[in-house]
Amino acid sequence: MVPNTGLCVGLDVDPSRFPAEYTQGPDSIVEFCSEIISLTRDVATCYKINTAFYEQFGRKGIDALYAVRDAVGTAYVIADAKRGDIGNTSSAYARAVFEDLQADAITVAPYMGRDSVEPFLQWQGKMVYVLALTSNPGSADFQRQNVGGKMLFEHVMESVLSWDRVSDIGFVVGATHERELAAIRTSYTDVAFLVPGIGAQGGDARLIASANAGGPAVFNVSRGLIYAGSGEDWRNAVRTEAIRLAHELHSPGE
Amino acid sequence: MVPNTGLCVGLDVDPSRFPAEYTQGPDSIVEFCSEIISLTRDVATCYKINTAFYEQFGRKGIDALYAVRDAVGTAYVIADAKRGDIGNTSSAYARAVFEDLQADAITVAPYMGRDSVEPFLQWQGKMVYVLALTSNPGSADFQRQNVGGKMLFEHVMESVLSWDRVSDIGFVVGATHERELAAIRTSYTDVAFLVPGIGAQGGDARLIASANAGGPAVFNVSRGLIYAGSGEDWRNAVRTEAIRLAHELHSPGE
Repeated sequence: MVPNTGLCVGLDVDPSRFPAEYTQGPDSIVEFCSEIISLTRDVATCYKINTAFYEQFGRKGIDALYAVRDAVGTAYVIADAKRGDIGNTSSAYARAVFEDLQADAITVAPYMGRDSVEPFLQWQGKMVYVLALTSNPGSADFQRQNVGGKMLFEHVMESVLSWDRVSDIGFVVGATHERELAAIRTSYTDVAFLVPGIGAQGGDARLIASANAGGPAVFNVSRGLIYAGSGEDWRNAVRTEAIRLAHELHSPGE
Repeated sequence: MVPNTGLCVGLDVDPSRFPAEYTQGPDSIVEFCSEIISLTRDVATCYKINTAFYEQFGRKGIDALYAVRDAVGTAYVIADAKRGDIGNTSSAYARAVFEDLQADAITVAPYMGRDSVEPFLQWQGKMVYVLALTSNPGSADFQRQNVGGKMLFEHVMESVLSWDRVSDIGFVVGATHERELAAIRTSYTDVAFLVPGIGAQGGDARLIASANAGGPAVFNVSRGLIYAGSGEDWRNAVRTEAIRLAHELHSPGE
């Protein structure tokens, strides 16, 4: 059974931060991630694999990407790929992530509009998280621009929800904006959110979970969790932090 | 010496469209692309490799991606990857494309703002083409939205040009909008454009080159060129079309 804590464990691999028992190179990725998965399996609702951290090691990294996906096994996998291109090209990306990597969900960048997003929406049983308001400072540059009386990210959300789909649909809404998360949740009560930015990026788990107020969401923690310890007791540190996070996310009102 | 025709050959691989002498699967990608490269080397200014068409075949496709890049050799390679993520993640994508794949240029999606684009701009001697006005119908959905009296894509261009960089900078401006290309070129006389959309997407090479009126640009043709022939004489068909395109692009005023 999948734990319903809402905790999403982000497997952002950075071998230079691996505990000392591992070599500080890409050869250790699979072993380290397998251990993280074992340590968090009973409290994680899903795992997020950001393709960038694997692609940076070339073909060796891609081999690791597939092996880590295998290590996740039957748990839910979000491929954080932020893809988006013209129609036939987006279709190819969707095949890569849904068929070949066998991810359950993907993140998609909306800048190119409807025909760049819709190919991802044609996959029954898969989830598509479209970027809305991201967690980084640069989210102010374009996403918050006023477009006909609303912000661009709101226009993106309204537009995407009006498009044809057979997949499930959700949005990326960053955890660095608690008040906005609460406001967005009020406007979109039933839509799934992928909420990154807890931990290293500054978002507080309990506040963020409260702001979401029970709407469907998963909350991603990457560096703040998987590198929670670096000494010999790093496994305990990771496990303790995972349990703490899961508790805060699952019981925001306590 | 690099031919200065402005012709960019897009290696969008689709094995189902390969000539009959090749098997219709990913095993033929490298052989087919090597032949296309040989047939076009003396008229192509650069080659564009869209990562989606390789990623769709999983690890086998990634192996082909690297082999095709090797086959291009010393000619100029644009990795059409449309990446963009928060800072440390974009840095990883930049390493993947510039260091590992050894591409000369990349395409970047701007939705996430300044700190998502700047990591790509920190590479001396590389070129970053940011998506501005793309060639697909969906470009109307967000890129053409009015933001403070100008269109979002214009706001993107102005913003990006104001950011710190050591790389070269350019923009993707679709060839399906001749009049707009001419207007954009008038506003940005010296900025490099990557102009996709000629051929299968409907753009006419001569009109588009005229609209650009001598500004720095490369014009991409993918399906319309590499699948120009399917019979036994397909090599002649490709070569004839490449020469025709190069002539029209290079001599738009004739």
